[in-house]
Amino acid sequence: MPDSPMKVLVLHGPNLNLTGFREPDVYGKKPIEQIDADIRSAAAKLNVEVRILQSNHEGILIDTVQEHRRWADAIVINPGGLTHYSIALRDALMSVRLPVVEVHLSNVHSREDFRRHSVIAPITIGQVVGFGGYGYVLALTALLNLEREVV
Amino acid sequence: MPDSPMKVLVLHGPNLNLTGFREPDVYGKKPIEQIDADIRSAAAKLNVEVRILQSNHEGILIDTVQEHRRWADAIVINPGGLTHYSIALRDALMSVRLPVVEVHLSNVHSREDFRRHSVIAPITIGQVVGFGGYGYVLALTALLNLEREVV
Amino acid sequence: MPDSPMKVLVLHGPNLNLTGFREPDVYGKKPIEQIDADIRSAAAKLNVEVRILQSNHEGILIDTVQEHRRWADAIVINPGGLTHYSIALRDALMSVRLPVVEVHLSNVHSREDFRRHSVIAPITIGQVVGFGGYGYVLALTALLNLEREVV
Amino acid sequence: MPDSPMKVLVLHGPNLNLTGFREPDVYGKKPIEQIDADIRSAAAKLNVEVRILQSNHEGILIDTVQEHRRWADAIVINPGGLTHYSIALRDALMSVRLPVVEVHLSNVHSREDFRRHSVIAPITIGQVVGFGGYGYVLALTALLNLEREVV
Amino acid sequence: MPDSPMKVLVLHGPNLNLTGFREPDVYGKKPIEQIDADIRSAAAKLNVEVRILQSNHEGILIDTVQEHRRWADAIVINPGGLTHYSIALRDALMSVRLPVVEVHLSNVHSREDFRRHSVIAPITIGQVVGFGGYGYVLALTALLNLEREVV
Amino acid sequence: MPDSPMKVLVLHGPNLNLTGFREPDVYGKKPIEQIDADIRSAAAKLNVEVRILQSNHEGILIDTVQEHRRWADAIVINPGGLTHYSIALRDALMSVRLPVVEVHLSNVHSREDFRRHSVIAPITIGQVVGFGGYGYVLALTALLNLEREVV
Amino acid sequence: MPDSPMKVLVLHGPNLNLTGFREPDVYGKKPIEQIDADIRSAAAKLNVEVRILQSNHEGILIDTVQEHRRWADAIVINPGGLTHYSIALRDALMSVRLPVVEVHLSNVHSREDFRRHSVIAPITIGQVVGFGGYGYVLALTALLNLEREVV
Amino acid sequence: MPDSPMKVLVLHGPNLNLTGFREPDVYGKKPIEQIDADIRSAAAKLNVEVRILQSNHEGILIDTVQEHRRWADAIVINPGGLTHYSIALRDALMSVRLPVVEVHLSNVHSREDFRRHSVIAPITIGQVVGFGGYGYVLALTALLNLEREVV
Amino acid sequence: MPDSPMKVLVLHGPNLNLTGFREPDVYGKKPIEQIDADIRSAAAKLNVEVRILQSNHEGILIDTVQEHRRWADAIVINPGGLTHYSIALRDALMSVRLPVVEVHLSNVHSREDFRRHSVIAPITIGQVVGFGGYGYVLALTALLNLEREVV
Amino acid sequence: MPDSPMKVLVLHGPNLNLTGFREPDVYGKKPIEQIDADIRSAAAKLNVEVRILQSNHEGILIDTVQEHRRWADAIVINPGGLTHYSIALRDALMSVRLPVVEVHLSNVHSREDFRRHSVIAPITIGQVVGFGGYGYVLALTALLNLEREVV
Amino acid sequence: MPDSPMKVLVLHGPNLNLTGFREPDVYGKKPIEQIDADIRSAAAKLNVEVRILQSNHEGILIDTVQEHRRWADAIVINPGGLTHYSIALRDALMSVRLPVVEVHLSNVHSREDFRRHSVIAPITIGQVVGFGGYGYVLALTALLNLEREVV
Amino acid sequence: MPDSPMKVLVLHGPNLNLTGFREPDVYGKKPIEQIDADIRSAAAKLNVEVRILQSNHEGILIDTVQEHRRWADAIVINPGGLTHYSIALRDALMSVRLPVVEVHLSNVHSREDFRRHSVIAPITIGQVVGFGGYGYVLALTALLNLEREVV
Repeated sequence: MPDSPMKVLVLHGPNLNLTGFREPDVYGKKPIEQIDADIRSAAAKLNVEVRILQSNHEGILIDTVQEHRRWADAIVINPGGLTHYSIALRDALMSVRLPVVEVHLSNVHSREDFRRHSVIAPITIGQVVGFGGYGYVLALTALLNLEREVV
Repeated sequence: MPDSPMKVLVLHGPNLNLTGFREPDVYGKKPIEQIDADIRSAAAKLNVEVRILQSNHEGILIDTVQEHRRWADAIVINPGGLTHYSIALRDALMSVRLPVVEVHLSNVHSREDFRRHSVIAPITIGQVVGFGGYGYVLALTALLNLEREVV
Repeated sequence: MPDSPMKVLVLHGPNLNLTGFREPDVYGKKPIEQIDADIRSAAAKLNVEVRILQSNHEGILIDTVQEHRRWADAIVINPGGLTHYSIALRDALMSVRLPVVEVHLSNVHSREDFRRHSVIAPITIGQVVGFGGYGYVLALTALLNLEREVV
Repeated sequence: MPDSPMKVLVLHGPNLNLTGFREPDVYGKKPIEQIDADIRSAAAKLNVEVRILQSNHEGILIDTVQEHRRWADAIVINPGGLTHYSIALRDALMSVRLPVVEVHLSNVHSREDFRRHSVIAPITIGQVVGFGGYGYVLALTALLNLEREVV
Repeated sequence: MPDSPMKVLVLHGPNLNLTGFREPDVYGKKPIEQIDADIRSAAAKLNVEVRILQSNHEGILIDTVQEHRRWADAIVINPGGLTHYSIALRDALMSVRLPVVEVHLSNVHSREDFRRHSVIAPITIGQVVGFGGYGYVLALTALLNLEREVV
Repeated sequence: MPDSPMKVLVLHGPNLNLTGFREPDVYGKKPIEQIDADIRSAAAKLNVEVRILQSNHEGILIDTVQEHRRWADAIVINPGGLTHYSIALRDALMSVRLPVVEVHLSNVHSREDFRRHSVIAPITIGQVVGFGGYGYVLALTALLNLEREVV
Repeated sequence: MPDSPMKVLVLHGPNLNLTGFREPDVYGKKPIEQIDADIRSAAAKLNVEVRILQSNHEGILIDTVQEHRRWADAIVINPGGLTHYSIALRDALMSVRLPVVEVHLSNVHSREDFRRHSVIAPITIGQVVGFGGYGYVLALTALLNLEREVV
Repeated sequence: MPDSPMKVLVLHGPNLNLTGFREPDVYGKKPIEQIDADIRSAAAKLNVEVRILQSNHEGILIDTVQEHRRWADAIVINPGGLTHYSIALRDALMSVRLPVVEVHLSNVHSREDFRRHSVIAPITIGQVVGFGGYGYVLALTALLNLEREVV
Repeated sequence: MPDSPMKVLVLHGPNLNLTGFREPDVYGKKPIEQIDADIRSAAAKLNVEVRILQSNHEGILIDTVQEHRRWADAIVINPGGLTHYSIALRDALMSVRLPVVEVHLSNVHSREDFRRHSVIAPITIGQVVGFGGYGYVLALTALLNLEREVV
Repeated sequence: MPDSPMKVLVLHGPNLNLTGFREPDVYGKKPIEQIDADIRSAAAKLNVEVRILQSNHEGILIDTVQEHRRWADAIVINPGGLTHYSIALRDALMSVRLPVVEVHLSNVHSREDFRRHSVIAPITIGQVVGFGGYGYVLALTALLNLEREVV
Repeated sequence: MPDSPMKVLVLHGPNLNLTGFREPDVYGKKPIEQIDADIRSAAAKLNVEVRILQSNHEGILIDTVQEHRRWADAIVINPGGLTHYSIALRDALMSVRLPVVEVHLSNVHSREDFRRHSVIAPITIGQVVGFGGYGYVLALTALLNLEREVV
Repeated sequence: MPDSPMKVLVLHGPNLNLTGFREPDVYGKKPIEQIDADIRSAAAKLNVEVRILQSNHEGILIDTVQEHRRWADAIVINPGGLTHYSIALRDALMSVRLPVVEVHLSNVHSREDFRRHSVIAPITIGQVVGFGGYGYVLALTALLNLEREVV
């Protein structure tokens, strides 16, 4: 197992495709394409195989989680607005028995009250919140380290 | 009407396609394919015509409810995680003016607090909760009995 | 064990002795005597031995649960108004280490808000709600099936 | 009907048998026997037939309500501590389809917070609160007037 | 003091001047003029001197309470919609050191939730709720009896 | 009825007389006199007869509602700060059995939390919120259309 | 800019395609096709260019909002059941930096409690609630007036 | 007073008769008979006269409290499930003007949330929680010490 | 500006005219006339021009605030019972763009729970609470100091 | 007692040592050293003896309160962030049986919601809130006046 | 182990050093020195080795708990005001893996509401509440008995 | 600035000194000394200068934050149990105007409910939660990246 690369599914939830355009003071000016490029570049360096998907559809996100349950070793997800109510997405992540890391671009705790509550967080292993697109890279690093420590 | 079979739409919400694989201690070990076969087999015995659909998409579930509003005499639904927030699904079920039975595989009242609240239940005629895949068969039986008692 | 009949204690809580007379739009027009006869008739067909008791006294219900803890294989209970506050009854049901099914004649989720909360439900294996007196028959069927699946 | 006397069941809930002895600053110094005598004396003057019962048992109160459902034209009840949680007693009062008046000796709104909430009040026609034992006499008067106005 | 009549200020809050016209199923068909005439007639029989005022102005109700603090021996008030928020009216009633009885025409506990909470009730000696215009007469009777018992 | 103009009472609650001066970023720069002139001008075009009143007194608003209960065909009201607590005003609007439209100049849902709750809204037929003084004109148009659709 | 027509995206959320059929006492008898025709007809008169879309899929609604972020000058949306929980839809509307008007056919404040809370309202400029299909026309008129006032 | 033994009524509420059998991990393996024997043995050593009663009936517990109001110097009570709702039992304990000690076998604060709230505790002098059957002996010791300190 | 005296409107809300008579243990024994004389005397020493008004009418208080919006440099207000609900008064104080100081005679935080919440406080610059009539003098001093520090 | 100066312990809680540096828009630009100098200067004029202490340690604040329980005639305290949770500090202030005045530099009611709740306020005699460092001087003045009025 | 004495760390939280002086009606008149002497004397009789510490500093209490994690067999703690919020102290007690008994001098359930909630209780084995200084002796006795029962 | 190393203060709150010993299933088996060594080693590689401090004293943590307000470029803090209530610590972190990253060893969202609420999070720039001691290294990396992106 040390030789074969870890496989990570990276999921962006609703509206993350507008990152860079959308409220740049909150979400940063870096466009989603650049964030994805950064993830791929970091993954290459870390010997991690990534697949990245963005969708505005809760159903597609759930389908994708399910379809990768044998391929993936871990999931990194920014559930966007679904964070706060999608128990269906939570159940999907729970169902596939994989370690999940939750990422948020902005510090959700300094915005509207409802953004402080995540229905996803309790079934993840951890969260990386507030570091913009770099949060995904930190999440990959964290997953790799977990594996290393266990080995 | 006694001669023509009752027509029932059976809907499985998000993640129910993983039943058997997913948290077997909670949802049971019987795979969804077997549960569906059991439903069809019971329906045949009860002279009930069934159509069964599973989807991870709230929108597809709503579309399906709407499309069957003239075909179906009743609906049996396990809304999965949507149970707890999908007012859109509730509105769809309300809109079609059909008797609805809500089914849950596990006893939702002995799990997380949020699972105790169903936004669907108030617009159904009843619920069957906690009996695994057999709950669907009980729901069909209950619907048939309702019709019989009214006739 | 397959040969000897399953033994089930059926308990009706406060005011269920008025079923048929009491708010018939809510609870149905079938009198309690007829419901009990239906239960006995179904039990006979299902090879289930039943004992049925109704009481308006929380204490008698608890005594009865305790006294049957060696006789009964399972309990079917409609706790009536006690559903919403009798932690003493809940404790009794918990104490005897038997599978319990909770039944309600009406759909408690489409009535007053306080009827949506059951203190009993978390310690049962399941609930059958909204199908009038036929709910007891469904509960017996569900219990039999549970046993069959386990065997 | 104007000639035959109105028949009223008067019920005292738990601990009202200690009235006069129990916290006299709250509930008054007049013993329950004297309160009952006053009720009977007023009833005689008003041409009302009364039956009075006190019990510390929720179940006996419910039994008594049910048993008088054909005899009584109305019920006057001080549910004592059961006021705040006994949905079973509420259901009994609701079941018998009779006008109910709720009486409290003390002003429950100037005491502990939990005493401000009555589960009984919503299914009564009215309440008389805070006038000690004389509240029962006011309740009888109110019931008589209701009948008179309707006639 | 037994010879001089008790003096009672009777106050009707906002919209009570429309009684008889306004939602007659809730508040009754008897017009306010008739209710006031009934109060005066009962007061005459009971040897009670009454002054009656209706106002839609919280300020006028408070002024009136204050102005009668030396004239009145007691106050009977139906605060109408102010019941649920007017702490200013509560403070006025508290300030004048007189026994207060709260009256409501309808059973406020079987209507909207917010009608169940009275900010006035904790500073009264009692309430008479649900008996239409006759509630004022019961309140006068109750006040007389209080005085008698104390004497 | 199609020939005689619809008669509408337009009510401005507390502090609306300062519109134009008061927090112009929230309520707009157009003075109340201009808003009223716009209402009158639109009413003339729509063949609607209007009476407009502003008051800082809850009691005067209630009196005015009551006094126009025979004259008016409908009421358009911006209850200002009273929106959030005046059950007395709500009761007045309910009492006169007329269609009511609630108007707010600003979007009350993007300001303080308490502004999101209106005690008036449940007894209106609809609300027009966030369009400044033009909201009154929209409300008149809406009322006219309602009448037209019914005719 | 005064010469070119304002471009408005009109969105109907889940179940609005059943308008006319679905609970006509609540939502009105006018079918959605007629409502859309009325919108187009009013838009033509007002020199507004409209695109109208209905979907039962949260994801499609979000996609559509995003795709029109350069075409549209404003959005009119009736989010249906999504109103009460779809933070993802809210985020989409927020992301595209366009004025949004929220429309509801029925008066959501006189129905179930949960319908009183909109997660969409805080990020709109205003709401038009309770005027049936005509609400969309009022919303277009309001948007036009906003532009006019600013110009 | 030092010579005559203190008299203590010891009450076990619902389901405590199953102690030893019932959830032994929570309530301990020592049967109720042994707990009672330990109480009697400790009482003998401490020169305390005890009467012990267990009942599953709220009404019997209340009756017993009332009947011992002249005999007893103090009450030790484990109200079982009634702890959390029986205001009637609370009122009984309050009515008899005796010092009350509340005992729980298990640490109610480390179990379900609802077990953390006792309606009894505010009217006791103290609680002994979590020490199994030995808690009753500690309660007796505490009562004796109280008397000693006062003397 | 240093030479011309600061002009301060001092407002007493409902029931403050009874100060000295009303619950003297809570509000002090000093009559309102003496408190006003103390304010005038302190104002004279501080070179502050004051106008003092007491009213039991929310509407008059709002009118007075509005009428003094050009005369006054600041407002000192004890809103009495209106403190806890009068959003209309809050809006008036907000509308006039003047510094406001809130005064309470008693320590509102050691009384009933509802007195701890002021709807006025968030739009003031500060509060002086619990120092009886002297609180007004402290408020004037505070306002003068603010001006001095700014100058 | 009139001759000997009043002795007042002035306590600054956590982070008040950074006043002047820390968020000057909220807490003012005047450094803590200057505020303390102003307190000493005012105390000298008022013939008050002061001891001033700042600490970031809850324990030191409690120790200091206790150690001065014989020296001090009164305490003026700005508990800083401890205001909102330190029941231990509250208990210390309660324990020493001295009049306490609570001071806050900023208007805590116009900031985060949690700043509106003080666990200290109920056991003080009053609060001075929102007047920057001058609030301490007002507090000293208030204490002196209290003593004068009592004498 | 039966021969070597049990070692118990006894901790008094903030303000307990003032016991005897502080609110004697609540906490008793016995000074802390006498309570400690009683503890030592009882410990000697019970063959228990005790170390006793009082501190007003949360940090010192935590340090002390940690430092005794190898010395102590059990901890008896009265956390004083920290009971209600110090999750840090709770974590310390949890961290050292020792049985903990929580003691309170007064009956915390008959005082302010906030005193009814202990953040410490869920991680203890039990509580002794309301018996003054004697509660510590009861706690020692309870710990000894636990050990004995296990052995 | 690119040449001089970033200076980061790393703070461990209460009980973190027991990491490795304390509940290893929750917090991991790696002792705090090793975690600190890992931080120093990573810092060296990243050209970051670190100072590390652990304290069980809220006051010392606040003092340390304040003392480093000129030395540090950023703060990484695991506030331990203080996370959930220490507004004083929050204020300290806010006061020093430095970027703060909050770290938790365990996933606080899958434990007790109260652990889900951080009073610290809203004033940080981000959080790293659930990755054991490696979270500190991720936090340093995140801070470095922030600086890089800004440059």
